[in-house]
Amino acid sequence: MTRGFNFGAGPAMLPEALLLEAQRELPEWQDSGMSILEVSHRSQKFLQLMDEAEQSLRLLLQIPDNYHILFLGLPARSQFSMVPLNFLAETARAAYLVTGHWSSMALDEAGKFGQAYCIATGAQDNFTAVPHSSSWQIQNDTAYIYYTPNETINGVRCTEPPRFADIPLVADMTSCLLTEPLQINDYGLIFAGAQKNIANAGLTVVIIRDDLLHLINKNNIPTIMDYRTQVKYKSLYATPPTFNCYLALKMFQWIAKQGGVSALYEINCKKAALLYNYIDSSSFYHCKIQPEARSLVNICFSLEDEGLEDLFVKEAAKDGLLALKGHKAIGGLRASLYNSMPLAGVEKLIAFMQKFAKEQAL
Amino acid sequence: MTRGFNFGAGPAMLPEALLLEAQRELPEWQDSGMSILEVSHRSQKFLQLMDEAEQSLRLLLQIPDNYHILFLGLPARSQFSMVPLNFLAETARAAYLVTGHWSSMALDEAGKFGQAYCIATGAQDNFTAVPHSSSWQIQNDTAYIYYTPNETINGVRCTEPPRFADIPLVADMTSCLLTEPLQINDYGLIFAGAQKNIANAGLTVVIIRDDLLHLINKNNIPTIMDYRTQVKYKSLYATPPTFNCYLALKMFQWIAKQGGVSALYEINCKKAALLYNYIDSSSFYHCKIQPEARSLVNICFSLEDEGLEDLFVKEAAKDGLLALKGHKAIGGLRASLYNSMPLAGVEKLIAFMQKFAKEQAL
Repeated sequence: MTRGFNFGAGPAMLPEALLLEAQRELPEWQDSGMSILEVSHRSQKFLQLMDEAEQSLRLLLQIPDNYHILFLGLPARSQFSMVPLNFLAETARAAYLVTGHWSSMALDEAGKFGQAYCIATGAQDNFTAVPHSSSWQIQNDTAYIYYTPNETINGVRCTEPPRFADIPLVADMTSCLLTEPLQINDYGLIFAGAQKNIANAGLTVVIIRDDLLHLINKNNIPTIMDYRTQVKYKSLYATPPTFNCYLALKMFQWIAKQGGVSALYEINCKKAALLYNYIDSSSFYHCKIQPEARSLVNICFSLEDEGLEDLFVKEAAKDGLLALKGHKAIGGLRASLYNSMPLAGVEKLIAFMQKFAKEQAL
Repeated sequence: MTRGFNFGAGPAMLPEALLLEAQRELPEWQDSGMSILEVSHRSQKFLQLMDEAEQSLRLLLQIPDNYHILFLGLPARSQFSMVPLNFLAETARAAYLVTGHWSSMALDEAGKFGQAYCIATGAQDNFTAVPHSSSWQIQNDTAYIYYTPNETINGVRCTEPPRFADIPLVADMTSCLLTEPLQINDYGLIFAGAQKNIANAGLTVVIIRDDLLHLINKNNIPTIMDYRTQVKYKSLYATPPTFNCYLALKMFQWIAKQGGVSALYEINCKKAALLYNYIDSSSFYHCKIQPEARSLVNICFSLEDEGLEDLFVKEAAKDGLLALKGHKAIGGLRASLYNSMPLAGVEKLIAFMQKFAKEQAL
């Protein structure tokens, strides 16, 4: 077998050019006498890499100077705790817009540390739609509003941020950061696990507006989970995941070379439209998500005959179309079309889907 | 430049054979159609890798079945919080043996979550000696005893575990795990950051005795920091750092090929003795640590004329002897001789030290 098209939701496909570059540099990096896996996080060379990574990301997303960028060696899921631990005081509440599996988990976690409530939930629609903004209910003394613009497991996208006056808005952009343009100023805090559109698993990027740091006033936050500490030490309070940071910089450079986030967004729209259009036009495949709530990057679908899904996944893999199984929490099929997935991958997938449907109809 | 000998304390040197193997497998891993950086943590192939990593480590350290092994995508420093968060109840105290920088930091962190006290400290000796066990004072209601068998920054080793009756013993073995044989049964919990002797930075290995899980009875532990959760989900509560786990397995296999931990321990003793003997025999170099407290793997030393240390580091680097600067917290010089550092590296270092001393004496 050679490299196929990896439709997995994360750890996800990386551009081949990046892998080949990393491969070339593996036994020794930039005349340093050692590989990037062995370079000290305190060395000049590595500090420069971190600085370049920050500047590149700042440029790609036009992140103003009053936002800090952190590269943390923690899973994205750590943020489910860190956000309430830092910002949910005893006298306040946290508001969650529940649009699927991950926002639901985040709300549960916040409940461990204080009062957290749901401003609206798509649960009654089985998360096939985003509750209309007219139904969103914000209570008094809300410390922050949290939402998940793209639900990786459910394949649901919320395009309207739940903004209410100047209440800080927190967004889990794990699967959508860098896949579409962003109004950074709308947000107080954005986080994203790296393993979708940034690097390999083991890194979480946090973008946090400076004034939010002054809202933190608790003394019993685990130091590694205190945003003030991470900002103060510029992500080096603990040894950072150096190799992931190195790959992240390469990815940011790759994105710039593709024309930046807007250019990739255009391709991402095209890729998603192609696949959804084919699914909608077919009587063999089916997408349960309401058209206006469909994810741009995690396309969830099913077969009219669900019993054939395992065969579909197996046969697709033989054609080099990999990891198409849906998340076990909801089943079905899922094609993740992150930045690294070329249009050719989607075209090949659709061709396979047509062939498979035809064969099964015989 | 070509690959040199990296004496950095971590991220540290890795065996070249391992890097070449990883390089070979980078664009595609084991006929999977993708690189290890892109493989899903839920895939059969990766689950098998995790299982092999666990079994290999179990074999290397003869870890009995009543111990769980975790591979966590958290920095080692997360354990400074996790240990008290899980085991320090309001009615109890935590005991810390303070032998240097890291145990000192761990004690400070525990104080955030409850009562933590020092059973003895080497501070009055400026951490050049380990307080004698006859001075160790244990108080009533001690929930656990914590110590750091090897202090990476200070170059101090504590060979006698502070065991008191059946109080659970917790050890930060970040820089010494796998460098010497171990009586696992002495311990309740052992943790080690990967970036010294296991893999690249971004992974922490935890070995925890099953009965300790039953001592945890708090409900407000951040879920990702709850050992019960991590054991329940077999390290997959959040996406694990897949590449680090892959390298860890390779490292465990490499250690086995060297003859296991005892064989490496023998070489480590030889490497350390060579370097300490040379330093002690010289009037140009100096080691402040008491002989019985000297680390086997982090050899801290200084020049009689400290003003020459920067030149020493610079000249050594020209000879391919890299990262010899001591930690900024204490200054001086430090040669880390972890498992991956061959005897030839130490011999070359000593030859350079002789040459440098001679040149400066002119």
